[in-house]
Amino acid sequence: MWVRNAWYVAGWSHEFAPGSIHARTLIDQPIALYRTADGGLVALEDRCCHRFAPLSLGRLEGDDLRCMYHGLKFASDGRCIEIPGQKLIPQSAYVRRYPVAVRGGWAWVWPGDAALADPAAIPSSLALDDPGYRLKAGHLDYAAHYLLIDDNLLDLSHLSFAHEKTLGLDMPQWADDRPHMLELERGLRVQRWITGHTPRGFMKKQLGERVDVWNSYDFLFPGIFLQQTSFHPEGTAHRSGGGAPDRPPLFHRIDEQAVTPLSARASRYFYAAGARADDIEPDRLDRLFAVTETAFGEDKALIEAQQKLIDLEPDRRMLPTSLDAGPTRFRRLVDSLLTSDGAPTGVGEGVRSASP
Amino acid sequence: MWVRNAWYVAGWSHEFAPGSIHARTLIDQPIALYRTADGGLVALEDRCCHRFAPLSLGRLEGDDLRCMYHGLKFASDGRCIEIPGQKLIPQSAYVRRYPVAVRGGWAWVWPGDAALADPAAIPSSLALDDPGYRLKAGHLDYAAHYLLIDDNLLDLSHLSFAHEKTLGLDMPQWADDRPHMLELERGLRVQRWITGHTPRGFMKKQLGERVDVWNSYDFLFPGIFLQQTSFHPEGTAHRSGGGAPDRPPLFHRIDEQAVTPLSARASRYFYAAGARADDIEPDRLDRLFAVTETAFGEDKALIEAQQKLIDLEPDRRMLPTSLDAGPTRFRRLVDSLLTSDGAPTGVGEGVRSASP
Amino acid sequence: MWVRNAWYVAGWSHEFAPGSIHARTLIDQPIALYRTADGGLVALEDRCCHRFAPLSLGRLEGDDLRCMYHGLKFASDGRCIEIPGQKLIPQSAYVRRYPVAVRGGWAWVWPGDAALADPAAIPSSLALDDPGYRLKAGHLDYAAHYLLIDDNLLDLSHLSFAHEKTLGLDMPQWADDRPHMLELERGLRVQRWITGHTPRGFMKKQLGERVDVWNSYDFLFPGIFLQQTSFHPEGTAHRSGGGAPDRPPLFHRIDEQAVTPLSARASRYFYAAGARADDIEPDRLDRLFAVTETAFGEDKALIEAQQKLIDLEPDRRMLPTSLDAGPTRFRRLVDSLLTSDGAPTGVGEGVRSASP
Repeated sequence: MWVRNAWYVAGWSHEFAPGSIHARTLIDQPIALYRTADGGLVALEDRCCHRFAPLSLGRLEGDDLRCMYHGLKFASDGRCIEIPGQKLIPQSAYVRRYPVAVRGGWAWVWPGDAALADPAAIPSSLALDDPGYRLKAGHLDYAAHYLLIDDNLLDLSHLSFAHEKTLGLDMPQWADDRPHMLELERGLRVQRWITGHTPRGFMKKQLGERVDVWNSYDFLFPGIFLQQTSFHPEGTAHRSGGGAPDRPPLFHRIDEQAVTPLSARASRYFYAAGARADDIEPDRLDRLFAVTETAFGEDKALIEAQQKLIDLEPDRRMLPTSLDAGPTRFRRLVDSLLTSDGAPTGVGEGVRSASP
Repeated sequence: MWVRNAWYVAGWSHEFAPGSIHARTLIDQPIALYRTADGGLVALEDRCCHRFAPLSLGRLEGDDLRCMYHGLKFASDGRCIEIPGQKLIPQSAYVRRYPVAVRGGWAWVWPGDAALADPAAIPSSLALDDPGYRLKAGHLDYAAHYLLIDDNLLDLSHLSFAHEKTLGLDMPQWADDRPHMLELERGLRVQRWITGHTPRGFMKKQLGERVDVWNSYDFLFPGIFLQQTSFHPEGTAHRSGGGAPDRPPLFHRIDEQAVTPLSARASRYFYAAGARADDIEPDRLDRLFAVTETAFGEDKALIEAQQKLIDLEPDRRMLPTSLDAGPTRFRRLVDSLLTSDGAPTGVGEGVRSASP
Repeated sequence: MWVRNAWYVAGWSHEFAPGSIHARTLIDQPIALYRTADGGLVALEDRCCHRFAPLSLGRLEGDDLRCMYHGLKFASDGRCIEIPGQKLIPQSAYVRRYPVAVRGGWAWVWPGDAALADPAAIPSSLALDDPGYRLKAGHLDYAAHYLLIDDNLLDLSHLSFAHEKTLGLDMPQWADDRPHMLELERGLRVQRWITGHTPRGFMKKQLGERVDVWNSYDFLFPGIFLQQTSFHPEGTAHRSGGGAPDRPPLFHRIDEQAVTPLSARASRYFYAAGARADDIEPDRLDRLFAVTETAFGEDKALIEAQQKLIDLEPDRRMLPTSLDAGPTRFRRLVDSLLTSDGAPTGVGEGVRSASP
């Protein structure tokens, strides 16, 4: 049911403050994260191998973690190094250690075969404190399967309807025109021009009456959405022949998001929004971010309702339309990942999931 | 599990204010109701055929309904008439339209084969604003299967116990005597005299020390309870030979109720209570209605507890007694409706349930 | 799934005030308890045989119980003695009567074959008003299977970790040393010395700098924990050769607890704590009891989290350690009780569970 061999966003890096043990769930796996003395992030199975008490209710002892039910102690590689009142520690006494990496603003966890975990495969996103940008970040929990949120992000035509008063204001082109799509190794690149757009609010003051907008995003498994929206003088789209703009933009907006499946009906949605530091003042970023979060609330209401209607009649078939090219291609990719993931792989020491 | 070919009460007619889309569930089917410009009521499947967003989160555009996820638009007959960015609209693009009718105070929906929906089959009930009567109305939600509420209404012996301090005050006859029963096409007629009753409160002032009470109700599938309770001078029961009273009553009480199954463990109970306009002043109606609602709370506590005990041991057998003649006959009727409903019927265009 | 032939604690005896009907659930069985005029406790199936309304919503009439849905009346032996409007009462009209007994502070119910219910088999516990002791009592509800709470009580090594700031303060010996265990007919006797303990707070004032502590408890099915903790002058453990102390203690603490399974994921935990009346003043008992209840909250957090982690992956195997000798032996006992309980037994009149 889950693709195990993939990097998943466990949280914003700044969520994992030193000195605490942080409980997270990814694809139905309970994980305890904490920082070692050198600031490194450790991700261990959040379930003591002894009687299944959560280690996140335990105690940090230096770089080790002690279960505070019966006192078993684990090193940061997951090995049990102490059992109270017992000298022999059997080889089977360990909790799973998950490969973990901090890249951009996010902490990533690999729930699959550790031997296959390559940090180089982590998508490149901005750090929240990148000096070239001003960004704000947040997250939202959904009572819905993560692929419904992916569907939403892979078909931005919904901006003209779901967000007609927020992100899609005066932009019917989201729904009317179909974007270009390019298959990437683990996702899709989606690009389009929106021409003759009339900016609103502070954007109008900054950009004038009419602009061409270039929207380009990469969408990567499991739900990494890395989007650039750049505003150009009218005519730029035409001159670029429908391709990428040939000159730097007037205004450069960034949206970076990650959808993480927690369980079959729970997902966490991480998002950052902002612009080049030169393009936006902090108070205007606040406004832009507030509108963006309002829009995410609009999505959540629709998607959670959609999930309930799906669950009411799980075998009912949806009606495909030309709007669905993105979601359809991506679902095919997920199917192929599930297939390849299910194939037998080498056994990593102490890091393989008990349930294949 | 559900009888589909039947009229179900979706709500009081006045619940369906113009300009809004009203979400209701009947027998596990999500339904969106709204008024067209001419005041007519429309009932469409509350699930866009595209990606299953609820149309009740959509937008009314004249007499049409637009899904506000990706913008598909539906006419009031359920046909999709617009898909953004796509010229061809496939024949399979529609949502189910439900036959709907307003009769008496209620809006009725037919979730079965539209070809079989005959408004003439709708039971006759009073409009809430009928000038001959003074009525008050309300509704109550149950966490219980609708047939448990039907059982309750089909065996009024419970008035002497469940309602010994409200509706059944000083009326042990409800439990002691068995009423006459007559099978109707889709229900039962239940009639009885209660003789030598001592009215209480304002009824006593109006009717005197002792009266004979004639109670007669029709109970029709799925749970339509149309009751008349008329108060007569003592001796009327005897003179009528146990049959219907031969003269107009001193006081004529009306109770009209409808039980609607929402899902297997959720039901909605609609009720109106009152009397002939000449028989009751508004403030006295308020008191009568307050006692009635207190009694419905008594039923709800018992029936929801009963449901939990049934679910604890679903195969356990109840003990039949002579009290159960009404419930037993009615359950037999429901079984026969389920059987005939399951038989193959002609396929209505675009209105058949996906799950037979 | 449940051992039926056993005495279960339904509550503290004082919970069952006369004049009321008390609803309780034991091993998924709904039970109504009430007092007869002579103060005796009656336990009847809390489900009218007629339509399954709960008798606990009914009415006490002398020593009888009337269902207040349709009026069936039951004697305190469970036989139906009145059906409104019906003269014949069939033999099958009864609710189950449960053997019940009040012993010590608790009311006990036997949900199995009544013919096997021997009150002499009830474990001996103190009455809360025993003049020789000062005790306080309470209870706590768990969202967990009762055997997880039993596990907790059968391995007190957790005191050094789960309760390192409450009951196990400065007592690493709980985890380091393994106690003596003796198998009893339906449980285990667990005993140990903790030597050289430094008392805290008022105990220090009363007992001095260092004492030896003798801890002994019997743990009996389903979860009866009868513990004595006695404090002795240093050296007593050595002199007693590791066995029971040979002289009366300086301070004698009592903990009596009972774990009752309500359903598969709900348990009730009854507890009393105190000491010999001469050993403790009321205000000190209050402090001792407050610390004890804090510790029970620590257990509850761990055990409910443990239950969730077990349910997430029910087939996963725990890692056995030498800590688990108590829980392991006791689980073996429970298995044997389940096996013997499932064997065919004589049919008691009107008292056998419908679902074997």
